[in-house]
Amino acid sequence: MSTMIEKHDTEEPRWQKTKSNKAALQAEAIRPFLDQQPNAVHDAITAILDVEELASRIARQEFTAHDVVLAYIRKAATAHQKTNCLTEVLFTEALQRAHTLDAHLANHSIPLGPLHGIPITLKDQFDVQGADTTLGYSGRAFKPAEGDAVLVEMLTGMGAVVLAKTNLPQSIMWCETENPLWGLTTHPLKPEFTPGGSTGGEGALLALQGSLVGWGTDIGGSVRIPAHMCGLYGFKPSSGRLPYHGVPVSTEGQEHVPSVVGPLARSLTSVHLVTKAVIDAKPWELDPKVLPLPWREEAYKEVQSRPLVIGLLVDDGVVRVHPPVERVVREVAAKLREVGHEVIDWDPSGHAECIRIMDQYYTADGGEDITRAVSAGGDPFLPHVSALVNRAPAISVYQYWQLNRAKVAAQRAYLDKWRRIRSPKSGREVDVLLTPTMPHSAVPHRACRWVGYTKVWNFLDYTACVLPVGRVDRRVDVARADARVAEYAPRSEVDRWNWSLYDPDGLDGMPLSVQLVGQRLEEEKVLGIAQVVERLLRMSTSQAG
Amino acid sequence: MSTMIEKHDTEEPRWQKTKSNKAALQAEAIRPFLDQQPNAVHDAITAILDVEELASRIARQEFTAHDVVLAYIRKAATAHQKTNCLTEVLFTEALQRAHTLDAHLANHSIPLGPLHGIPITLKDQFDVQGADTTLGYSGRAFKPAEGDAVLVEMLTGMGAVVLAKTNLPQSIMWCETENPLWGLTTHPLKPEFTPGGSTGGEGALLALQGSLVGWGTDIGGSVRIPAHMCGLYGFKPSSGRLPYHGVPVSTEGQEHVPSVVGPLARSLTSVHLVTKAVIDAKPWELDPKVLPLPWREEAYKEVQSRPLVIGLLVDDGVVRVHPPVERVVREVAAKLREVGHEVIDWDPSGHAECIRIMDQYYTADGGEDITRAVSAGGDPFLPHVSALVNRAPAISVYQYWQLNRAKVAAQRAYLDKWRRIRSPKSGREVDVLLTPTMPHSAVPHRACRWVGYTKVWNFLDYTACVLPVGRVDRRVDVARADARVAEYAPRSEVDRWNWSLYDPDGLDGMPLSVQLVGQRLEEEKVLGIAQVVERLLRMSTSQAG
Repeated sequence: MSTMIEKHDTEEPRWQKTKSNKAALQAEAIRPFLDQQPNAVHDAITAILDVEELASRIARQEFTAHDVVLAYIRKAATAHQKTNCLTEVLFTEALQRAHTLDAHLANHSIPLGPLHGIPITLKDQFDVQGADTTLGYSGRAFKPAEGDAVLVEMLTGMGAVVLAKTNLPQSIMWCETENPLWGLTTHPLKPEFTPGGSTGGEGALLALQGSLVGWGTDIGGSVRIPAHMCGLYGFKPSSGRLPYHGVPVSTEGQEHVPSVVGPLARSLTSVHLVTKAVIDAKPWELDPKVLPLPWREEAYKEVQSRPLVIGLLVDDGVVRVHPPVERVVREVAAKLREVGHEVIDWDPSGHAECIRIMDQYYTADGGEDITRAVSAGGDPFLPHVSALVNRAPAISVYQYWQLNRAKVAAQRAYLDKWRRIRSPKSGREVDVLLTPTMPHSAVPHRACRWVGYTKVWNFLDYTACVLPVGRVDRRVDVARADARVAEYAPRSEVDRWNWSLYDPDGLDGMPLSVQLVGQRLEEEKVLGIAQVVERLLRMSTSQAG
Repeated sequence: MSTMIEKHDTEEPRWQKTKSNKAALQAEAIRPFLDQQPNAVHDAITAILDVEELASRIARQEFTAHDVVLAYIRKAATAHQKTNCLTEVLFTEALQRAHTLDAHLANHSIPLGPLHGIPITLKDQFDVQGADTTLGYSGRAFKPAEGDAVLVEMLTGMGAVVLAKTNLPQSIMWCETENPLWGLTTHPLKPEFTPGGSTGGEGALLALQGSLVGWGTDIGGSVRIPAHMCGLYGFKPSSGRLPYHGVPVSTEGQEHVPSVVGPLARSLTSVHLVTKAVIDAKPWELDPKVLPLPWREEAYKEVQSRPLVIGLLVDDGVVRVHPPVERVVREVAAKLREVGHEVIDWDPSGHAECIRIMDQYYTADGGEDITRAVSAGGDPFLPHVSALVNRAPAISVYQYWQLNRAKVAAQRAYLDKWRRIRSPKSGREVDVLLTPTMPHSAVPHRACRWVGYTKVWNFLDYTACVLPVGRVDRRVDVARADARVAEYAPRSEVDRWNWSLYDPDGLDGMPLSVQLVGQRLEEEKVLGIAQVVERLLRMSTSQAG
């Protein structure tokens, strides 16, 4: 008996062996690209924020695809050392691919497509032929994908080069980034902080210039939260707009609160370009869940040509946002008003009900899907995953159908609300909402608890775009000792917790953002209005500078 | 004990009391309109097959809305006497409404909308304020709806007048029309035959000129099958195109094989006009499940201006169709070829797999939803409903999610197939499929067993339109004694059963149809091609005549 215990104690668990093997392979793939000399051309390349600009400079042969890819690989290697953001490393394959693209351009004099030579990275959910799609579960390691996800097939078909895959949290349904197989991903500015999640590997990597466009998934804010915390642009379309085929996910088959794919990038123009490029390539011909809805350029342009009506939602009524978060949202609202847009109040009625219904979907199977995935490799459960899978027993399919009925009723109520709320001045309906992304900036690891500002839009399947706006600034933001902060009477335990995280000294310099939200399948409208806001912000910045 | 039995034996069960009460109210509402003298104006009105023509003649004040509605009420009353097609009778309300419309036109000189004065009827699932929505369950009787379904609100807002609601089968998921509350609906041409189902009340009523447009629902063929059996036009859009809000349904909340609403009418132009009118009125502003996809007139017209590629699927590989069904499909194919369209073979690969997966959705709750609905009023179970609810035990939500994964994989395989099959001549993809609607014409009650020719398109969520084409003709069709029929070797029990139903003498004169099928959300394309086929058929008919 004691021998058995001893054996159990000393023998390395299966998942740790897998972890060691994966880590060794990863280190080997990265090593050649570490600690290289500074290179001015490479720095010039990675300083370019915009896909279209980089693609056109490659097309004009100012840079080779090989130079571009190598420049990004070197930044990605450094970013990984700093933040542990990568999972599958495909650097060698990427350089080979870059050579092929350069040869193509030399031979044909025209680029392969609009993304010729553009380095991209993917959350470790997207199938890439020959690479693992682990989702952070050791049980999925060493089972390489047999083909590419539809999105990967489309992007590489347009000339994009996949550099690597990036880290995500166990269960995926979490707003930070940690799993037993790949470990903890940290914030680019502060290792004791989270970059957010679940697409946190992309957040850290992009912020450190290790990629130009990253692709994530979002079922509760997983693209938008790391964008917010890392100072990036992030876009969550409605479901059925971008192809999900070939992207395994936890609780796959749960389609009523749909997970969607979306891009993160270092410029809004990049987000716009890749979204439009994918839609222009007719993803509905390859993925049965994609709607045959072409890019509507007129909707994109129309909202850039007239006064808008903006609904301002600063407080969701559950968790009050930190003072700097409120500050940037109100600053953007003020700037919009200044140039002639209407900004009217939007109330959070219905949000709590939407979230109450929504949370029941995540645990409708009693946690069976995630438990199976974690247990397949013998991984230890992280505490938030234990809590999730034990939160509620499985419901019956009949109850599940009743839940869907409640969902549709809540969606209908929100649609009615959108019809009802009107500008008192013009009588018009709201074009988009302007609202926070999170109640706080990036915070220490394992401190995030409330994603109500993002997840409600997944429940409604609305379109949302996050734009970086300013930073926490200890010189400007309300001090912790200020009575407005110190004496705040919390509404609930989660509100109290959130308020306790506020510390303008500790959070100083952390990026902030605003979120623009349009109705279902209003991708062009939301991206068009994001352009309006972006121009306004850049104009203000250059005026101030 | 014997007293109790006696009491039990003599006391009328609850559902029978409800049935008697409903029948008495129904008879009272119909009585004033029965056995009236022939009226030439009324006959002229009900002879008009086309919504646009009737609406414009009302708008020009050739007919009052009151005349039109009364003409239709009289036909509907007679149709009900003959086929038992009605449930809720709203004749008095309809005449009042017609008066209001006439007053509106007199006062404003313009009609209320494009459907001003057009009589419509609704399967007894659509909520109409103040009327029951029984779904054929006695437990739902005497619980009037508090509001109108979105579709009803939209149609009446355009001037349509609801005459009545119509019969459907217990559970709704059946291709004939019978329930304990309202009884059995019969075929207009032959009382011992079924009109099909589940929208069978509409089928019988429309065929007897008791309505101009009927609205049904379709999750396996329920709009298309009665259209086929009763010689009507029927249209099943993809889900998310027409509003379903306010239309209760059995197994509501099961959204993975979506039930859709669709029109039945006596002309293709009527089907086209009402579909376009509803989409033009932006149903996505009222129903959260409707996609913001405006009517695409260019797609409707484009297919009417060029040679088409038609995929011909005559046999689904499971149940071989009766000789007259095959005859009309091949006749249409030949006519299309004659005028220059390409007709290429389409194979049924994948169909059996789609249906195998699909059937598991209907019973995923172990029949709980339907059992509750039947039991609520103490209704007896019809045999096919007993069989359905007892077919399989409930599965878990986790298993349900796995079923969804299998569904998406099968949908993707079919999409790949559509990409792969090409015209050998032009290399182009198929525009639409030309295929039978049912393996047989209308047949005796309780004889239908196979709806694989319609339901596979629900599983794929494709668009389908049924057009009446010819009739069973004992002088033309293969006789029963013919070796081709008599010696047919059945593939399976269901195939043997279907073949045993073939009898060109007994079925003589029964309507036939073809089904045109386009991909997901190709409503405009399918209706445009239906116009091409319709013109071809009408041309041929007038040439022959």
